[in-house]
Amino acid sequence: MGAVVLAPDGREIARASNEVEARQDPSAHAEILAMRAATAALGTRSLAGCTLVVTLEPCPMCASAMVHFRLGKVIFGAYDPKGGGVDHGPRIFEQPACLHRPEVIGGVCEQENARILRDFFITLRETRDS
Amino acid sequence: MGAVVLAPDGREIARASNEVEARQDPSAHAEILAMRAATAALGTRSLAGCTLVVTLEPCPMCASAMVHFRLGKVIFGAYDPKGGGVDHGPRIFEQPACLHRPEVIGGVCEQENARILRDFFITLRETRDS
Repeated sequence: MGAVVLAPDGREIARASNEVEARQDPSAHAEILAMRAATAALGTRSLAGCTLVVTLEPCPMCASAMVHFRLGKVIFGAYDPKGGGVDHGPRIFEQPACLHRPEVIGGVCEQENARILRDFFITLRETRDS
Repeated sequence: MGAVVLAPDGREIARASNEVEARQDPSAHAEILAMRAATAALGTRSLAGCTLVVTLEPCPMCASAMVHFRLGKVIFGAYDPKGGGVDHGPRIFEQPACLHRPEVIGGVCEQENARILRDFFITLRETRDS
């Protein structure tokens, strides 16, 4: 479960992983943390022209945050029919009132990303139960 | 623009105002900051049984965050037909896949809250332009 923000020239600006457990903060999804780190690194409030790459289809909270950050493009791996907010659920960027629509490329290396996610949650459960 | 989180007994746990400008962080809405402060203060990840009171109808990002925080109830002042995500736009809590639905009371002291918001944005523009 990780997200990377790339500058328009492809340079990496920031990366983050899901820290909900570590910070005990339900809003600490990888996408939010990576975008906050990226704007802090750039000294700006906008991620126009930047690309965020993430393992899983972003949830409605993260998709809506991408609107506020004016993110240029989001590329994600596995689709998330239950919790996704881009190609599922509220389809945030397709809402008529949505003020900014990042370009979206979904389902990239889907099998590989699904495997990474499975491993992440298995480890999480083992850590919790130990 | 402010949000307060109350414990089930009505005690104030945390409060925050919009810090998007101050932190140069587009995700630093009052609701997100107040909920993060509340879970930090409680030493838990859940705001079950807690109430968040906020000036304006929460946006889709903040409404979706309320789902992740498992907030008990949200009370807001002015409705936001353009940017709201509770009674407008994606109506986050009414989505079939929504995993948690806070109780919602909207439009409380609407005129008074609309005035507070107008004053906030006038001050913000004056600060920006000065």
